[in-house]
Amino acid sequence: MKSLGIGLIGTGFMGKAHAFAYRAALAAFPDIPVPVLRTVADMTAAAAERAAAQYGFESATADWQSLVADPKIDVVSITTPNIFHKEMALAALAAGKHVHCEKPLAPTLAEAETMMQAAEAGGLVTQVGYNYIKNPMLKLARDMVAAGELGEITNFRGIHAEDYMADPEGLYTWRLDPEGGPGVVADLGSHIIGMARFLLGPIAEVNADIETVVKSRPVAPGSTERKKVLVDDIARLMVRFARGCGGSLEATWVNSGRKMQLAFELTGNKGSLVFNQEHFNEIHYYKAGLDPRHGGFTRIEAGPQHGPYGQFCVAAGHQLGFNDLKTIEMAEFLGAIGGGAKAGPDFREAWEIQKVVDAAVRASKSRSWLKVG
Amino acid sequence: MKSLGIGLIGTGFMGKAHAFAYRAALAAFPDIPVPVLRTVADMTAAAAERAAAQYGFESATADWQSLVADPKIDVVSITTPNIFHKEMALAALAAGKHVHCEKPLAPTLAEAETMMQAAEAGGLVTQVGYNYIKNPMLKLARDMVAAGELGEITNFRGIHAEDYMADPEGLYTWRLDPEGGPGVVADLGSHIIGMARFLLGPIAEVNADIETVVKSRPVAPGSTERKKVLVDDIARLMVRFARGCGGSLEATWVNSGRKMQLAFELTGNKGSLVFNQEHFNEIHYYKAGLDPRHGGFTRIEAGPQHGPYGQFCVAAGHQLGFNDLKTIEMAEFLGAIGGGAKAGPDFREAWEIQKVVDAAVRASKSRSWLKVG
Amino acid sequence: MKSLGIGLIGTGFMGKAHAFAYRAALAAFPDIPVPVLRTVADMTAAAAERAAAQYGFESATADWQSLVADPKIDVVSITTPNIFHKEMALAALAAGKHVHCEKPLAPTLAEAETMMQAAEAGGLVTQVGYNYIKNPMLKLARDMVAAGELGEITNFRGIHAEDYMADPEGLYTWRLDPEGGPGVVADLGSHIIGMARFLLGPIAEVNADIETVVKSRPVAPGSTERKKVLVDDIARLMVRFARGCGGSLEATWVNSGRKMQLAFELTGNKGSLVFNQEHFNEIHYYKAGLDPRHGGFTRIEAGPQHGPYGQFCVAAGHQLGFNDLKTIEMAEFLGAIGGGAKAGPDFREAWEIQKVVDAAVRASKSRSWLKVG
Amino acid sequence: MKSLGIGLIGTGFMGKAHAFAYRAALAAFPDIPVPVLRTVADMTAAAAERAAAQYGFESATADWQSLVADPKIDVVSITTPNIFHKEMALAALAAGKHVHCEKPLAPTLAEAETMMQAAEAGGLVTQVGYNYIKNPMLKLARDMVAAGELGEITNFRGIHAEDYMADPEGLYTWRLDPEGGPGVVADLGSHIIGMARFLLGPIAEVNADIETVVKSRPVAPGSTERKKVLVDDIARLMVRFARGCGGSLEATWVNSGRKMQLAFELTGNKGSLVFNQEHFNEIHYYKAGLDPRHGGFTRIEAGPQHGPYGQFCVAAGHQLGFNDLKTIEMAEFLGAIGGGAKAGPDFREAWEIQKVVDAAVRASKSRSWLKVG
Repeated sequence: MKSLGIGLIGTGFMGKAHAFAYRAALAAFPDIPVPVLRTVADMTAAAAERAAAQYGFESATADWQSLVADPKIDVVSITTPNIFHKEMALAALAAGKHVHCEKPLAPTLAEAETMMQAAEAGGLVTQVGYNYIKNPMLKLARDMVAAGELGEITNFRGIHAEDYMADPEGLYTWRLDPEGGPGVVADLGSHIIGMARFLLGPIAEVNADIETVVKSRPVAPGSTERKKVLVDDIARLMVRFARGCGGSLEATWVNSGRKMQLAFELTGNKGSLVFNQEHFNEIHYYKAGLDPRHGGFTRIEAGPQHGPYGQFCVAAGHQLGFNDLKTIEMAEFLGAIGGGAKAGPDFREAWEIQKVVDAAVRASKSRSWLKVG
Repeated sequence: MKSLGIGLIGTGFMGKAHAFAYRAALAAFPDIPVPVLRTVADMTAAAAERAAAQYGFESATADWQSLVADPKIDVVSITTPNIFHKEMALAALAAGKHVHCEKPLAPTLAEAETMMQAAEAGGLVTQVGYNYIKNPMLKLARDMVAAGELGEITNFRGIHAEDYMADPEGLYTWRLDPEGGPGVVADLGSHIIGMARFLLGPIAEVNADIETVVKSRPVAPGSTERKKVLVDDIARLMVRFARGCGGSLEATWVNSGRKMQLAFELTGNKGSLVFNQEHFNEIHYYKAGLDPRHGGFTRIEAGPQHGPYGQFCVAAGHQLGFNDLKTIEMAEFLGAIGGGAKAGPDFREAWEIQKVVDAAVRASKSRSWLKVG
Repeated sequence: MKSLGIGLIGTGFMGKAHAFAYRAALAAFPDIPVPVLRTVADMTAAAAERAAAQYGFESATADWQSLVADPKIDVVSITTPNIFHKEMALAALAAGKHVHCEKPLAPTLAEAETMMQAAEAGGLVTQVGYNYIKNPMLKLARDMVAAGELGEITNFRGIHAEDYMADPEGLYTWRLDPEGGPGVVADLGSHIIGMARFLLGPIAEVNADIETVVKSRPVAPGSTERKKVLVDDIARLMVRFARGCGGSLEATWVNSGRKMQLAFELTGNKGSLVFNQEHFNEIHYYKAGLDPRHGGFTRIEAGPQHGPYGQFCVAAGHQLGFNDLKTIEMAEFLGAIGGGAKAGPDFREAWEIQKVVDAAVRASKSRSWLKVG
Repeated sequence: MKSLGIGLIGTGFMGKAHAFAYRAALAAFPDIPVPVLRTVADMTAAAAERAAAQYGFESATADWQSLVADPKIDVVSITTPNIFHKEMALAALAAGKHVHCEKPLAPTLAEAETMMQAAEAGGLVTQVGYNYIKNPMLKLARDMVAAGELGEITNFRGIHAEDYMADPEGLYTWRLDPEGGPGVVADLGSHIIGMARFLLGPIAEVNADIETVVKSRPVAPGSTERKKVLVDDIARLMVRFARGCGGSLEATWVNSGRKMQLAFELTGNKGSLVFNQEHFNEIHYYKAGLDPRHGGFTRIEAGPQHGPYGQFCVAAGHQLGFNDLKTIEMAEFLGAIGGGAKAGPDFREAWEIQKVVDAAVRASKSRSWLKVG
């Protein structure tokens, strides 16, 4: 099996997740190209070297451009803040590398489009870090929808709620810089939009109510100086899918108490599915028309019958973790580079997601329904 | 303690619930006026007589007008389909009776307004059957909001989903007659609108996407003849509360598998509350700012510390049932007639709820935000 | 339909529940004899009169013997502390009354046997207040076991845990008086024993570890005087059922945080059932052998398809409350007196339950397995 | 930082888990010795070579003795069936290797003791695969018990129920060979015994009811030949802890529908903890004495405040998976070899666990309480 040289840019939250995933991918998926951890880049040489030792990269650098140019590197992972995505991705694509980039793809729709076009022009494989849909239970859900097991789909109610910005005295951080694009509608909203698309296909129209509830935040601990917040904290969307059904989506990062409420209820006229990332190794399924004495929602626990769970564990109920989802994501990406099944979401799909984000922002401003794209 | 003569019109689903409630009210709330079950009316004398025997009414009639005119009757309960509410309520009010009417108050906003005006002109006590807010856990929620225990409220996400119309081959019934008003947005939507108002006060603006997903239904079992459905099956609302925060509301009667998902998540910057009628003897509360090692949502189980639970049982965790909520509702109504605390929701509040329903219907048609009222 | 004169002794926690139930029984079950609330007795005439007014009894007395002797009374409900059960029940039976007595039947097995013999000698209908098994979901469970839907039963794990004695500084109360019989093994243990018997039939052998964890308690608020506790706080049982399978039962009233954890998991080789009184309007059912992609425990919500739920409400998911269980209990009792289906648990069944309690206490002392009875 | 050469024997369920864990350990715990994957052994050279390629070992062998003798190997992981543990572990210890061995340590208590003695005589670091207690939520639980946050502990109710042997027509497998030791009481029972000891310390006395419910099984698919089952399917234990409190433990591998119900409720007089491996990234905590209006069980979700969760992810609620628990286990083991904190459970602790298993088996046979050890 051929091997692929890996370069990783960024070693924070997502950088670590990529490193774990590249290290685990082959052990779980023995048929993919062998990932060889070549180089890791960070802001300082010291940080990069620390990461190289910890994650097993052969070398470290503070110069991401040299990483991108390195002929031993075939694949570049970009895990820096959004604001850097375009420059890095375009450089990597120009150097002929396959690129994995964290989500959302770029601060603006136009930048995302540029990136998508560069990727497609170069014929390179890309992927964007919408990791939650790599869950075997989500694949099950999509398969059930596609097979008609839920009948005609009539409604989708989705949410991504967390609370990392809920404290009104929480500091002003880089996440709030409007140069990086919208707020929660892009950061978390893109996850639930991507999940809705994964399950039900394109969103055709959107209306939205997007707002900032914490109007200003302290600039530093203990400081009385506050900076005005220009990005959104809560986004409520009404959507119409191209397939004909409607739905509602919500994203909030001020939902006190919620750490990972990425959840949906999907209803068809023959059944329903209920999912919550808080317990992501299960999904609840209602099948219409059964004996009413025994009917109800069934809690389906993930097991090897739900691929690719079995790549990690042969016994049901043992559970995957967040980093395992990331491993599936990376393995699919590497497999696709190696000529296997097309993975995703690629830059085009990420651009499609961003179209919905963009339309929602504009719909909220114009207080009207807008067509997407 | 004085007594009140009770007349009940209708003996179906809600008629039975009223009868249970009137029989139990005094046992739970010994300080209210004594309800004396005088007369029950139904479509036929036989049905009325059967109900009288079963529920303990002194007499039965097929003539609701005679019931309304009976001087021994002080209170009239109306549990017939919406389409009859106005005529019956106006007659009862004209006869000087206090009136309890099931929800929604009337098919149209204009009719509801007429009823409200008649009640207020007569100085009579009215109540409308929004029973779910009689739950001690909902009273707790409202008290917590009012006391500022959740801080500044930032979001409300509410839903009322059931599945009694989910089967696309389910028959065309009186519920689908457009003469009776809108569909699910009135039938179930009014419950979640009323609950939102109960907790957070007036809704100032609304936008909505309201749709019919089952376009036609058989007119009779086995019939190939189908009748076009003109009322809605799913209603999705975005709302702005007068207090400043936003929210989303949804009502659907085609949500396969859901029997009673009347649920909300209410978020403030100091905490959150999560409620679901599926487990209505509990509410989940997150309090911000506690030791993160031990923090999380707390499941609060109803007990005598949550009034008026203790009127039914002195021990926590034993649980109230649906009919107990109805008993609280009736006891508060009778108490108010007897000069006790004002209960509710009265005709005015029901009219306010109906304004939101009405605005949502118009907003969906015009595809635009509308002010309520 | 004939009527039955009701006399109620005791107006506390259970007295109130009986009163509610007698008032509601006919409304839910129109075919039973009409209960006529004749007389209520309590320690003082004032208390009895207050109760009579509140619950609608025709008369009140502080002399339970006169109640028992009253020829207008056909049925006597005994809701006083255990220590009084035998004297009252024997008097009522001697006067030819049908008797409902709260559980456990008596402080000792010998007393329970005397009561059982008196009832059977007189040919009178008796019932004992094991209300939790009146739940439609429990009837469903029993029917499923009996029909073999779970296959051969292999295990039963049951518990009744509450926390009303958990505070070690809680006062010494009448519940702790050893004259009243054992502690939690009788008070709560009898519920889970009765439930196990209801579902699976007789318990043949038992071993147990029964202990007192709070060794002494204050005699009064603020007092430094403490009284030694002689009854048990926790009982752990291993049991063998006559049908051949084994199980474990536990009862505790010092389980901090638990208000009503009356729960079981019942396993057969074709399926399992999981129940918890904390959410008693549902039961979870696993059926073996189905498509593993969709398999799992199904949450069955109570509805009119689960009799006698429909006597209270025609729509699923609305939920019964504790007092409704008591209503079913009383209606079945009155129905049996009227010649309908034999209800239960009667004094014989309560005596059988008490045999298990008695054997458990002796097994714990002798630290050995004992045959029951 | 020094490095450690790793040799792995066995590449099945647990072999894979070890491989994942060794690959991930350093990325999560950068301060431990660097694990260098030297050699993997399996029954055939082909299987071993496949595993070497997949997991990144430098070499492969079908000769575990050569692996054990290899001077480049410092650490040996044994993941073969129990029946081989002793021979392999003794050989590895004799060669001066640190040894990780899967659980249970050996078929018999005597063999386990021999292994423990060999390890201690050699001054080598050992560990046994009781992975579930590596969960950050279990560490939190132990810390809370140790700090007295639950007050005096009064009860422990534990269970490990799965269903992989529930089908009575499931085949006779090596797990049922009595040469490998007892059945479920060793296989799953050792997990819940180990967890109880981890939280509450030594178990002093035990009584048990251990039984075989599927008496015979087919020897091959479609065969009518059946083999008698000599090991147990269900074990119910009553235990007394050395600290003074009592408890109950249960293990079953015939619990239809359960995939991973490794669960406990632990009660003290100041609070309770409820845990279930089915949702192992959370634990439920009740603290006594708080405002009853708001009191109840709090669902604590794992986050970086619960070490070592933060080694895997900086954000709360993202969840660890089963393989992450194994990674913690291996990292602690390697860290201990490198001179860091003593990890565990070592061979001594595994022997202590096995003493309880052994005592339970004997207690069940003698139908009496037995002292452990």
